[in-house]
Amino acid sequence: MIDFSLPDDLVALRDGVTRFIRDEVMPYESDPRQEFHGPTDDLRCELVAKAKQAGLLSPHGPVEWGGLGLNHVGMAVVFEAAGYSTLGPLALNIQAPDEGNTNLLHNVASQAQKERWLAPLVAGEVRSVFAMTEPDGGAGSDPSLMRTEARPDGDDYIINGRKWLITGMEGASFQILMARTFDQQGNDLGATMFMMDNDTPGIEIVRVLNTIDSNSPGGHAEVAYTDVRVPASQILGEAGKGFRYAQVRLTPARMTHCMRWLGAAVRCHDIATDYARQRQAFGKPIGEHEGVGFMLAENETDLHFCRLAIWQASWLLDQGEQARNETSMCKVRCSEALSAVVDRSLQVLGGRGITGDTVVERIYRDIRAFRIYDGPSEVHRWALARNIMKRN
Amino acid sequence: MIDFSLPDDLVALRDGVTRFIRDEVMPYESDPRQEFHGPTDDLRCELVAKAKQAGLLSPHGPVEWGGLGLNHVGMAVVFEAAGYSTLGPLALNIQAPDEGNTNLLHNVASQAQKERWLAPLVAGEVRSVFAMTEPDGGAGSDPSLMRTEARPDGDDYIINGRKWLITGMEGASFQILMARTFDQQGNDLGATMFMMDNDTPGIEIVRVLNTIDSNSPGGHAEVAYTDVRVPASQILGEAGKGFRYAQVRLTPARMTHCMRWLGAAVRCHDIATDYARQRQAFGKPIGEHEGVGFMLAENETDLHFCRLAIWQASWLLDQGEQARNETSMCKVRCSEALSAVVDRSLQVLGGRGITGDTVVERIYRDIRAFRIYDGPSEVHRWALARNIMKRN
Amino acid sequence: MIDFSLPDDLVALRDGVTRFIRDEVMPYESDPRQEFHGPTDDLRCELVAKAKQAGLLSPHGPVEWGGLGLNHVGMAVVFEAAGYSTLGPLALNIQAPDEGNTNLLHNVASQAQKERWLAPLVAGEVRSVFAMTEPDGGAGSDPSLMRTEARPDGDDYIINGRKWLITGMEGASFQILMARTFDQQGNDLGATMFMMDNDTPGIEIVRVLNTIDSNSPGGHAEVAYTDVRVPASQILGEAGKGFRYAQVRLTPARMTHCMRWLGAAVRCHDIATDYARQRQAFGKPIGEHEGVGFMLAENETDLHFCRLAIWQASWLLDQGEQARNETSMCKVRCSEALSAVVDRSLQVLGGRGITGDTVVERIYRDIRAFRIYDGPSEVHRWALARNIMKRN
Amino acid sequence: MIDFSLPDDLVALRDGVTRFIRDEVMPYESDPRQEFHGPTDDLRCELVAKAKQAGLLSPHGPVEWGGLGLNHVGMAVVFEAAGYSTLGPLALNIQAPDEGNTNLLHNVASQAQKERWLAPLVAGEVRSVFAMTEPDGGAGSDPSLMRTEARPDGDDYIINGRKWLITGMEGASFQILMARTFDQQGNDLGATMFMMDNDTPGIEIVRVLNTIDSNSPGGHAEVAYTDVRVPASQILGEAGKGFRYAQVRLTPARMTHCMRWLGAAVRCHDIATDYARQRQAFGKPIGEHEGVGFMLAENETDLHFCRLAIWQASWLLDQGEQARNETSMCKVRCSEALSAVVDRSLQVLGGRGITGDTVVERIYRDIRAFRIYDGPSEVHRWALARNIMKRN
Repeated sequence: MIDFSLPDDLVALRDGVTRFIRDEVMPYESDPRQEFHGPTDDLRCELVAKAKQAGLLSPHGPVEWGGLGLNHVGMAVVFEAAGYSTLGPLALNIQAPDEGNTNLLHNVASQAQKERWLAPLVAGEVRSVFAMTEPDGGAGSDPSLMRTEARPDGDDYIINGRKWLITGMEGASFQILMARTFDQQGNDLGATMFMMDNDTPGIEIVRVLNTIDSNSPGGHAEVAYTDVRVPASQILGEAGKGFRYAQVRLTPARMTHCMRWLGAAVRCHDIATDYARQRQAFGKPIGEHEGVGFMLAENETDLHFCRLAIWQASWLLDQGEQARNETSMCKVRCSEALSAVVDRSLQVLGGRGITGDTVVERIYRDIRAFRIYDGPSEVHRWALARNIMKRN
Repeated sequence: MIDFSLPDDLVALRDGVTRFIRDEVMPYESDPRQEFHGPTDDLRCELVAKAKQAGLLSPHGPVEWGGLGLNHVGMAVVFEAAGYSTLGPLALNIQAPDEGNTNLLHNVASQAQKERWLAPLVAGEVRSVFAMTEPDGGAGSDPSLMRTEARPDGDDYIINGRKWLITGMEGASFQILMARTFDQQGNDLGATMFMMDNDTPGIEIVRVLNTIDSNSPGGHAEVAYTDVRVPASQILGEAGKGFRYAQVRLTPARMTHCMRWLGAAVRCHDIATDYARQRQAFGKPIGEHEGVGFMLAENETDLHFCRLAIWQASWLLDQGEQARNETSMCKVRCSEALSAVVDRSLQVLGGRGITGDTVVERIYRDIRAFRIYDGPSEVHRWALARNIMKRN
Repeated sequence: MIDFSLPDDLVALRDGVTRFIRDEVMPYESDPRQEFHGPTDDLRCELVAKAKQAGLLSPHGPVEWGGLGLNHVGMAVVFEAAGYSTLGPLALNIQAPDEGNTNLLHNVASQAQKERWLAPLVAGEVRSVFAMTEPDGGAGSDPSLMRTEARPDGDDYIINGRKWLITGMEGASFQILMARTFDQQGNDLGATMFMMDNDTPGIEIVRVLNTIDSNSPGGHAEVAYTDVRVPASQILGEAGKGFRYAQVRLTPARMTHCMRWLGAAVRCHDIATDYARQRQAFGKPIGEHEGVGFMLAENETDLHFCRLAIWQASWLLDQGEQARNETSMCKVRCSEALSAVVDRSLQVLGGRGITGDTVVERIYRDIRAFRIYDGPSEVHRWALARNIMKRN
Repeated sequence: MIDFSLPDDLVALRDGVTRFIRDEVMPYESDPRQEFHGPTDDLRCELVAKAKQAGLLSPHGPVEWGGLGLNHVGMAVVFEAAGYSTLGPLALNIQAPDEGNTNLLHNVASQAQKERWLAPLVAGEVRSVFAMTEPDGGAGSDPSLMRTEARPDGDDYIINGRKWLITGMEGASFQILMARTFDQQGNDLGATMFMMDNDTPGIEIVRVLNTIDSNSPGGHAEVAYTDVRVPASQILGEAGKGFRYAQVRLTPARMTHCMRWLGAAVRCHDIATDYARQRQAFGKPIGEHEGVGFMLAENETDLHFCRLAIWQASWLLDQGEQARNETSMCKVRCSEALSAVVDRSLQVLGGRGITGDTVVERIYRDIRAFRIYDGPSEVHRWALARNIMKRN
């Protein structure tokens, strides 16, 4: 029955996260250990240790592996609070792709796999990678173009191919790799997910890409796979079900992007609002000029509407629904509306906005990727349209 | 605690309304008793009788006066279902300004006033009017410019002035009039609301305006008040508190506009979707061309986001909150986003869209006023900005 | 060599048209002979007579047939001035579809056809029709779906089919009809244009459609063709070349729509600006509130950019270029930007905007069709994209 | 008389610039001498030497000082061609602020000042700075807030204050500084411009700001002025006329921003178009999906409309008009529309778009400042609105 109130324990947790972010994390935002490609792992470890001490690490992680076991609505509330700082998700261990990988392993991995890879991931001891996208006409928005191949060799598979835009690769411990898989007879079984330690022979970082964003430790890499040997026991779930599992991972993962970016956009709006109150021009605070004030009003409205839609889709996931359309609508609209909030906030700041003197400049660059990853807006609109046309 | 499910009885009521609208009301949409200025009262009475028979009349009305006594969330759900037909709100007696007047009288009127004016209103026996806006530089977005005056004369007040854009005046039984009030010494007491039967001597309809919309019986009139004598007992609430009561009326009234227009926009989207499935061009249904399909996806997203924000603001009102910001955000965004839905639906229909062969053309005209009445977008953005600047 | 000045004679003509519109035409805007479906032919004749007397009739018409023989740039300037009044194009005989038909006949018709149909058209003595669009899944954005057929019978053709949204049919003297044509052996020759007097037996107006616009005498009709016999001599140009001629007609015709609507949008902007200067709210003229002032600034910018693009595409046509892309860009952008100008103007007017007290309400309704006819925005964007993809 | 053709010599020059940019400049785009704050002066000198050799240096510079002496229309055409490469303006010596300073010195400086500062500037031997904007509540959009002061001391002035966002300071030879000037009696004379070599004692670079853009050698600095002594002979023009001269500089300077960014946006569109032709998804090149193709169509339209408006405002300036409104409209619309072109181009590129593998990512960051400098959009809209309200 319609209710927009939050349970007391969630409010308490959110407030704890808010305080932690403000008091413990935000002071690190000017820490020099944030390099061109992203924060260093040294900085990450320091932040993770603080979150662990505060009892706030891995709010999304399964309780049996040491997480707080939040449901999706809980995540919506807590991830927004964490996203308020550019370093908040890193501190709480809820950064992509680790957060989505945690969810995927929890749902699909064997017990042995969980012990080996999920446990240290939830503990914040290691970082992980999700290797699906390919360069040069390979898998992207259209995953059917996948070129990386896994071919059987006794009880092992031999993997060859190349991946691209692999977030966090440099410094990560293990990866989940998608490859087109063949059986002994050479039949194409479809895509399969493989668990692999990153020091497996034949895995090589070709380069770390220069990208507009810089919020992921390790940046985004191009990775070559040359005769990488993986035992069949490292298949995640079953062979040939890679795309199905990708959906298991991507649907909630696109929601957690929305949640974190909502927090980041709120931060920008707060910074812009403070500035609009203090900065005078033409005889009054600039926020009292409608040209600026209306931008603040639009920001507030976008934030409000996005938050409600995030909560609703999260609630649907908590009910066991697939929520394909609702999560697609969230992805498209939140990525566009929250980007607009950040853009307006930067505009309100004027000259200061284009400098690193506030985090708005950083968030403006980082959020640009949000309209592209996990399905660009165009792919989600296409999927929505297809479903609308089919519905009876 | 966050919950987006509807209670069973509300679902049942909504489904009943949906069936009633589809089976009983929509067939009337081609009824010729819809004239240039609006549906005739004859048509209205016929529809109201059907709603009464179906037990669906006045879902917003207080139970003690014969209504269904829905709370705001209940109204959100039911009014959307009713708004699906251009005649639905009229049938259920939830059309502006009657719906808002019902709420105002319920909250402010004396028992005697309720018996005289609220009872027949909830019963759907009469229509009413809310007379605030003035022509020629008088009260509008800035109500302080009010020129209509009430001056005491013994136990009566003598009212002189002119009102404009008075919805439903022709054929309505009574009105709530706002006038600047003076005491015996000529001191300005501020605005006061007066209850008046429309056949009170001195009230004259100057003309019925030609307007872009045509969904209100009686259209929108310009009304002159010449030495209209009203006993002090017909003051609604207390003298000088007119603007305060106006807020009591306007905040929920702007929500019910959102609710009804949401239903109308859903209708347009459904008509466009049906057409996009059937109409072929360049070798496939036009909805499979992304240029059209993306418009449908945007529609669906706008409808979804607006519905959630309407539910949330309604829920806040049910909690006893004033919800000034949330209702302002709903008014601005719903009026703009739902207008965009209707516009896209018309565009999808192509040539058919500009004809009266579907109700989309009608709704396209009618909804244009929504961005203006009850505070144009600019006034709400200004109010939101002011509150953002003040908040600490 | 880049030059944005107008030649003196064109400036003189434009100023003459501006005065004529203001002094002679605008007073007719409140003439009651403007009915639900459009102005009456009686009103049209009265206006045409005035333009003739002023020496301003048919500025687009070939000189040899009595027109002023303007080139496209000349038309751009003069049509904008005429479009300033909702009745201006009618007065000058430059209303669609007559204006486009004049151009088509001038370019394609035989001397005999010109004497019979072009002469009285340029003289403003008759109105004409262009019958291409079909109902119920027939020819529209995709003309290949054309169902109306012409089959040979001796030296004649027998035409059967149905057309729809045929502007100005009621009261028009003749038409140019597009029909799929077959030879004696039943081979499909493609589309052919036929000249036909409207009193030819077998042509029947099924109904005049109710449409959102009301600026065309005769409105928009659905027309049935039942065994209509037309001599082969009434083929316009050659059989099977209908689509080629349609391009001859449509490219400049879409420009003249832009020109006329530019004038109409300027009118709305002027009305809004006047109101923004006079109407006070919150202590100053509303135009001094940035929420309103910025709308005026956007209007001015849209009008300026559209005018320049119209002039450039017109100049290209004067150079003998086809200017497919430039005219498509004009059609898409002008239809959308000028609609936005009209919408903002209405919003500035507030409550007055939705009434017939200014022509803005009328223009708001009329201009909605502009984004649909002569190729909806989606078809032009598709054509532009295709050309961009092809270009080397 | 309306003419959109370019004179032959301008076409030849443009084609020469286009070839030079493609063959000589674009290969440098991957040169490592492009650091976090901008290209090095070493790189700049190498590029300038090439332009000099090609006879293309300083196309805007007065002929008597060695430039090509183009008028504004000529600049519009050539600067667009140069802007096609991120390094093009640097190579041709038409980068801000040097280009605007050249114009200002040409119009206002004394012969002695021209020999000392204009000559080496046009020769590309030195870079210069324009120091107006201030930090912390000082001069910005509202120049009346200027805090930097110049007070007379004998025949000299002593300057104290702080400037901020001073483009190109590090490595520049001289500057034009704006300071509030007082006379001997302490009367405020208004703002004055001073010519100063950057090694004048008391001028100190406090820091080079980290900014979202990186296309200016020397980046953007904060500069402190402590008891800087300047002889009165170094006043540019007359004391107290600083704001008047600022207009002389800013009006054409905002046009040259439009010109250069137009070229940059064309480049992004070309890169996106190439990618849309090659990249396959779902069975065809992505540009054949309307979701992508429509973005390309919008790009083409924005580029076309912006180019025409730039040409027209430039032509007006060539006629000796002030063109305040036209240049403001260009600044607002071009900064917004060209930013949208760049944004869409990046979106078309998908994952590749957020990487440095194309210059689109770089241009996306650089162009963000365009909506802010030389008057943010809000200030230009406000100025336009004010003029619209005043016009009679």
